Amino acid sequence: MTPREEIRKMKPYVPGRSKEEIMRKYNLKRIIKLGSNENPWGTSERAKEAIKRELNRIHEYPEPVNYELLNELSKFLGVEEKNIIVGGDGADEVLDVLFKTFVDKGDEVIIPIPTFTQYRVLANIYGAKIKFGKFDKGNNFKLDKESIINNITDKTKLIFLCSPNNPTGNLIDDETIKEIVESTKALVVIDHAYIEYSKKGDWTKRIYDYDNIIILRTFSKVFGLAGLRIGYGVANEEIINYMMRAKPVFSLTRLSQVAAIEALRDRGFFERCVRDGIKSRELLYNGLKKFNDIEVYPSEANYLLVELKNMKSKEFCEELLKRGVIVRDCSSFDGLGDKYVRISIGTFEEVKEFLDILKEIIN
Amino acid sequence: MTPREEIRKMKPYVPGRSKEEIMRKYNLKRIIKLGSNENPWGTSERAKEAIKRELNRIHEYPEPVNYELLNELSKFLGVEEKNIIVGGDGADEVLDVLFKTFVDKGDEVIIPIPTFTQYRVLANIYGAKIKFGKFDKGNNFKLDKESIINNITDKTKLIFLCSPNNPTGNLIDDETIKEIVESTKALVVIDHAYIEYSKKGDWTKRIYDYDNIIILRTFSKVFGLAGLRIGYGVANEEIINYMMRAKPVFSLTRLSQVAAIEALRDRGFFERCVRDGIKSRELLYNGLKKFNDIEVYPSEANYLLVELKNMKSKEFCEELLKRGVIVRDCSSFDGLGDKYVRISIGTFEEVKEFLDILKEIIN
Repeated sequence: MTPREEIRKMKPYVPGRSKEEIMRKYNLKRIIKLGSNENPWGTSERAKEAIKRELNRIHEYPEPVNYELLNELSKFLGVEEKNIIVGGDGADEVLDVLFKTFVDKGDEVIIPIPTFTQYRVLANIYGAKIKFGKFDKGNNFKLDKESIINNITDKTKLIFLCSPNNPTGNLIDDETIKEIVESTKALVVIDHAYIEYSKKGDWTKRIYDYDNIIILRTFSKVFGLAGLRIGYGVANEEIINYMMRAKPVFSLTRLSQVAAIEALRDRGFFERCVRDGIKSRELLYNGLKKFNDIEVYPSEANYLLVELKNMKSKEFCEELLKRGVIVRDCSSFDGLGDKYVRISIGTFEEVKEFLDILKEIIN
Repeated sequence: MTPREEIRKMKPYVPGRSKEEIMRKYNLKRIIKLGSNENPWGTSERAKEAIKRELNRIHEYPEPVNYELLNELSKFLGVEEKNIIVGGDGADEVLDVLFKTFVDKGDEVIIPIPTFTQYRVLANIYGAKIKFGKFDKGNNFKLDKESIINNITDKTKLIFLCSPNNPTGNLIDDETIKEIVESTKALVVIDHAYIEYSKKGDWTKRIYDYDNIIILRTFSKVFGLAGLRIGYGVANEEIINYMMRAKPVFSLTRLSQVAAIEALRDRGFFERCVRDGIKSRELLYNGLKKFNDIEVYPSEANYLLVELKNMKSKEFCEELLKRGVIVRDCSSFDGLGDKYVRISIGTFEEVKEFLDILKEIIN
């Protein structure tokens, strides 16, 4: 009974604290949760009703492929059903299946940092060699395209481009993505988890122009279904078919399936959440701009990256927690250091309340 | 963009037909579903109510580790919380994590056949070398323990013992498991997906006697939650801690978590389903015994394996489908051939109706 070398080298798993634990610890009556990039307006009521209607079938295994869901996604995205793979653990499962399908131990992947941590976690588990590129801190976190292109070798299998990037919030511009995609035969993973909040930069339909890209998207953000773990990938049919061989067959729950279908049909809720989400981001951005002790970066997503000038992120987050606000300490992101926090949009009221609370901590 | 060798060698994925498709094709008004080993009495009403109460939080990410669920499981099983890992795609995720944690390409696994197909599927994906043992057809599918022990080498990482075995239904006796476990340092995976239907043979608490076993269990069978994908593993703390490093963090949905907790608390529903499940199995067994054209095997699970004397399983299943009954054609199970079907228990009414329908097909 000896674990693989990759697993032995990993740090032990330490679960984060739940909302309930935090409330107990700090004796709080309520919490403003601006830490996980969720939809502050919750979930479509129609999606919740669809879940209730499905409750009498939860003893049955889920459909392995839900054609009704593929059909709704096809209409939503403007791509064909055969170009879509739906995963059962949010985009995380699609990422896992990408590694299962394309990456052998010793193969290389390129990850520009700071970015979504899960790419590195999976690369470590699967024994991939990681070459780090960079989002350039000195240049508003613009992607340094040379840091990607110069790292490409014959062994490169996956290149991760998160756009809008988590946690920096900025888009990677079309020209940069194009140059990277055209400079390699490796599969370029364009993670669009937050693209609904951006008015440009959507590469989803570009799968018909390039056969070495896959787009990752999710129901965890604007669709308000983070708790039901639904993500999907969009790519050419050959890639989708290979990935289907490696994909867990039943991983998307029955309730997740019906909720996703109805969330796509409730276009009114979706559009309102996008519009109000962007308004909330502007409210938050303009409010944060007024503080001298921080630098706030522009964002096309549902969160803002903030640099603290006179305080460490850990201390800042702790001060907010005491006052009932959860934001994300970014010190766990590779390549970012200990002075950054990520703040998600809230409802308009939550944003105002948060900005008031902030005055007690910084100037 | 070249998939791994293991993926290229796999057969393309072909999804099965849904209940709705079958109803359309054969113009059926209702279906008796005896194909997937589900709980014919559905799900605890209390679990459904718990789901409704959680609907206002489905926009939030799930708890990575749900201590309330671990606590209920601990009481149900009589083991400590630190000995349990809960997976988000039923026991399939726990199996996947086992491979991630312990199996490098080229390592060996031992799979006695016929058995649950997912062991082989994952071994293929992860590039493990499979050594097949056997459940002996000539001896009522008793596990041939020499076929396991003689295959053990220094490279053996996992040995899969499904008990009660799927699809044959028989238990592996305690002495046989003991001999195998004591003959190796490899991790012995004891898959107890159906153990609730057996009055003996439960190895769950034996994790305190052996540090090279892991028990797999699930909410997909007697708990009636197959559609919500909840499984778990029970093992010594060291194994659990290593597996937690490889486990997807958020894969168990919020609704699955609250449903599992409440299903464990509704002991009345659970006990009724076990008792009636065993009665239904007896009813089905005694009914099937009366047919001359088949041989039916004894079972400790919620299904029966049947051998057809004068007919191929494909034809038999098709004839039943036309009449609105789904059973499982076992020709896809390695090592079983084309004359076996697996029939799950139904409600008492379904079993009677099925036995009547069967008279139209065989003698």
